[in-house]
Order: sequence, then C-alpha cells, then structure tokens
Amino acid sequence: MSLIKFIEILAILVGAFSGFIEARRKRMDPVGIFTVAFITAFGGGTLRDILLDQRPLFWVTHQEYAILIFVLALIATPLIRTLRHIVSERMIVIADAIGLGLFSIAGVAAALNAHMPLFIASMMGVITGIFGGVLRDIVCNEVPMVFRDGKPYAICAFVGSWMYLLLTRVGAEHDLALWTSALTITGLRLFTWKFDVRIGP
Amino acid sequence: MSLIKFIEILAILVGAFSGFIEARRKRMDPVGIFTVAFITAFGGGTLRDILLDQRPLFWVTHQEYAILIFVLALIATPLIRTLRHIVSERMIVIADAIGLGLFSIAGVAAALNAHMPLFIASMMGVITGIFGGVLRDIVCNEVPMVFRDGKPYAICAFVGSWMYLLLTRVGAEHDLALWTSALTITGLRLFTWKFDVRIGP
Amino acid sequence: MSLIKFIEILAILVGAFSGFIEARRKRMDPVGIFTVAFITAFGGGTLRDILLDQRPLFWVTHQEYAILIFVLALIATPLIRTLRHIVSERMIVIADAIGLGLFSIAGVAAALNAHMPLFIASMMGVITGIFGGVLRDIVCNEVPMVFRDGKPYAICAFVGSWMYLLLTRVGAEHDLALWTSALTITGLRLFTWKFDVRIGP
Repeated sequence: MSLIKFIEILAILVGAFSGFIEARRKRMDPVGIFTVAFITAFGGGTLRDILLDQRPLFWVTHQEYAILIFVLALIATPLIRTLRHIVSERMIVIADAIGLGLFSIAGVAAALNAHMPLFIASMMGVITGIFGGVLRDIVCNEVPMVFRDGKPYAICAFVGSWMYLLLTRVGAEHDLALWTSALTITGLRLFTWKFDVRIGP
Repeated sequence: MSLIKFIEILAILVGAFSGFIEARRKRMDPVGIFTVAFITAFGGGTLRDILLDQRPLFWVTHQEYAILIFVLALIATPLIRTLRHIVSERMIVIADAIGLGLFSIAGVAAALNAHMPLFIASMMGVITGIFGGVLRDIVCNEVPMVFRDGKPYAICAFVGSWMYLLLTRVGAEHDLALWTSALTITGLRLFTWKFDVRIGP
Repeated sequence: MSLIKFIEILAILVGAFSGFIEARRKRMDPVGIFTVAFITAFGGGTLRDILLDQRPLFWVTHQEYAILIFVLALIATPLIRTLRHIVSERMIVIADAIGLGLFSIAGVAAALNAHMPLFIASMMGVITGIFGGVLRDIVCNEVPMVFRDGKPYAICAFVGSWMYLLLTRVGAEHDLALWTSALTITGLRLFTWKFDVRIGP
C-alpha cells in the first residue's frame, strides 16, 4: 500500500471517528452514528464536487470506504471504548492535522483542474478540509466548532492552499508543491495547537 | 388513476403533512409551513438527484405537487384541525410506511440506472427514504429524529434496498423485485412500530 | 459603473453585513464571520444554480466579491462599530429590500432560461431572494427568521416573481417587466415593514 493511500485511509478514519464521538455524545442510534461519521468523513469533498459540478463523487468510486465506516459504525460503542485506552488525544490531533493538509491541497488541485480562479481555488481547499466537520455540527444541532473556537484551523488550510497556488504558479515541480503545502498545513495546525494560539475577538 | 400514482401522491401528502405539523409546532408562519412541508416531501429525492447529478428534479417535471402543497399550506391550520378528528396516528404511520417503501426502492432503482455500485445504491435508497425528514429537522433546528429515536426506520429501508438489489441480481422479474422489496420495507416498518422494537445503545 | 452593478454590489454587501452581525452575535471567530457572510450573500443564488444545474456559479466568475467579503471580514469588528454610527436600521432595510427585489427577479429569469415551468420559476425567485438568510440561520443554529417572524418577506418576492412571469407572458418589454417587478417587491417589502403588516397564525 502506497504512503498516500495509507494517509488517505487514516484521514477518512479520523473523520469518521470524530463523527462517532459527536454522534454518541448526542445519544444517537447506529443509523445516526453511521450517517454523522459518513458526513464528517466525506462532507467537505462532496460539497466541493457539487459546487464544481464534478462527478462521480469520491465515495461513489471508492465504495469500500463507505462499507468500512458502515462496519465500524456497527461496533462503534465497543470500538470507542477500546480505542480510548490505546489512542491519545495527541494521536487524534496529529492524524487529523495530516488529513487536513492532504485533503485541503487535494481540494485546491481539484479546483485548479476545474479552471477555478485563484481565490476560489483556495476557498475550495478550505471547504474540502473543514466542511465535513461543519456539516457534522449542523446535523448534530451545534454552531460549527470551527467557526467559533478561535483556533486557527481553517486558517492553516488557507495559508497552505495559497502556498500550493503560488508554488505551482512559479513553476515548482508538482509533487514538491503538493507535499510542501500539505506539510505546511499539518505543521501550522500542530504548532498552533501545541502553543494554543488563538485568533479573533 | 393508477395504483402507483395514487400511492405516490399519498406518500408526498404524508411527507408534507408531517412538515406541516413540525412547522406549526415551531410556530412558523405560512412561508415556513410551505417550505418545511416541501422540504420534507421532496428533500430526500432532491438530495439523491444532486448526488447522482440527475436532472430535471422530480418536482420540477411535476410542478402540480408543489402547487398542491402550496394550496394546502395556505389552509394548513384549519386543515390540521379538521384532519385530527378524521386521521388517526395509525393511519399516518401506515401511509408513511408505504411511502418509505416506495420511495426507497425508487431511489435504489435510480441509483442503479446511474450505474452506482451496490452499496452506494443501497445508501441512495435510504437517503431517498429518510432525508426529507432529516432536512426538515435541520431546518426546524432539531437533531434529526431518525438518527436518535432508536426505532428501525432507516434500517427497514436498508434491508429492503438490499432485497431489491439481490432480487434484480439473481434475475428476478423487475416489477416483482420492486413490489416485494417495497412491501418488505413497509411490512418491517409496521411490524417494528407495532411491537416497539428498538435498536442501539 | 452602471446602476445595476451598483445595486448588485450594494445587495451583496447588505447580505454580507447581515451575516457579519449574526456571526458576531454568536461570538464567532473571523473564519466563522467570513463563512457566514459569504453564505448569506451567495447562498440563495448558489442553491438555485445547484437545483437548476447551472455552472459556473456567480461567485466563481466574480471572485472579486468573495475577496471583498474576505477583506471586510478581517475588519468586521471595527467596521460594524464604525457603521453603527453612520448606518441606520432604515438604511439597511431599504438596501436589503432593493436586493430582495433584484435577486428574486434575477432568480426567476434564470429559471425561465433553464426552461422551468411557471410555478417552479416563481419558487426559484423566492429561493434566490431568501435562502441566503435561511442558510445563515441554519449555520448559526437558529430556526430561520424568515419562516417564523410572520413578516411578509418571502411573500413580497413571490408576488413580484409572479408579476414578472405574467408581464413576460403577455409580451411586455423585458427590461420593463424586470424593473417593474423588482420595484414591486422592494415597494411591498418597505410598505409592509413601515406599517408592520403581519401574516400567519
């Protein structure tokens, strides 16, 4: 299995896992747990593809991920209980930061492929990175966390998206631009988390 | 009027009616009542068609249903008061169960037509059956009922969707597969309602 | 700058401004303030274009508006404080009413271009006019204002949309039909606001 495939699965699982936790906190039943996990994992990319009018959607061509989340949702309660002893908050934040970087840059690249102007492409990167969590919070009847906690989450995605746009524009090698930008997002996110940087009012 | 047309209208009216009740409970004005009823009746099929990139939407080619809901919304308050004396909860649950069966299977069939893989097709069936109510609850600022009440509603749609997929795969006659599966969903829903079966934590 | 361009920008700014205020009331950070303002300004037209399957979206071909809202979001807090001394509620209501008229009629015209039937076209007009605010309220975890306050907001858009449909159908000159209808919406909105007309239960 290639590294990028591994990170992809990891990022989807982290998204699904945060959906599991939020759905359980809201005392949802297995149907709710699956749906919220699915929306958290794929909501951002799906919204981007609808806005860009791109089909097929990622989870349509890779139904194995939907099946995986389905199976995990069935065992979500014992799964979460077990994982609590193994997985620390630090590990979740790291995996989530890796996913944020990878998916945001994938979002920018998809937008450039669809001939979006630069600022819109950067927005598509951020949407891909954060709207899974936004839709999760809307379904769970909360004001989206990422809009109110003052932690630079979307901003990290925004900065990295622009780095990618600039690097590709000055003619940098594509893979280099992609990995540098994705790692910048991950690094920024972990740095600001570590030192509890806050933005806003 | 054919039987399927009659059931279709009945199912849409039941969807709209549940929207009326929820919108009134939230003290909405006629604009809200119409919108919530419309979203409840057509939200599931519309979301499915957006995900599948199918156009025109059902309610665009059949604007008579939108007009019907509009007229009913204007008289929603006296209508609900009158119907309360005539319509029992049992009748609503039965009509809703028929609608759930019919719309879920219609959703699976639409997904197969659009060449979706099997698991995604079953998800599209469930989405068609339940997301009208999910969107209604989101607009009404509630955690969606179908995700939290522990009653096997989506699960009935899921089981019937797979029955339809398996029947068409083993070469069953199409109409037979459709009606058997839709009736299975309706039957399962009524059975689990009657005996108050619960799932989940 | 042409008059219509000026009104367009004004209407977008008013939408964004109402997003700023609502996002701040919910104590959102700059990311939330930008997103909510953006959704309020462009949500209605975007939903309409997704339902009609029209691309590119307005804000994709006019990224300057997205950039403008981005810049304003950065200075939203001092901006709102300053504007409070200059801008009265009356001015906001007037600008919003102008925007409601213009965008609703633009929505009807887009729906007719996409060969929608008449009632659906009138709904698309209303959706374009009001769903920015609806989506703003959903993201901010409120029951949408326009569905519950009993003030004839959507109804003004509905009446004007039908005026436009009838005028174009009887062969009125297009620009005349557009401006008469848009002004009717604006006028109705201001009249019902001035005299505090209420509808509903």
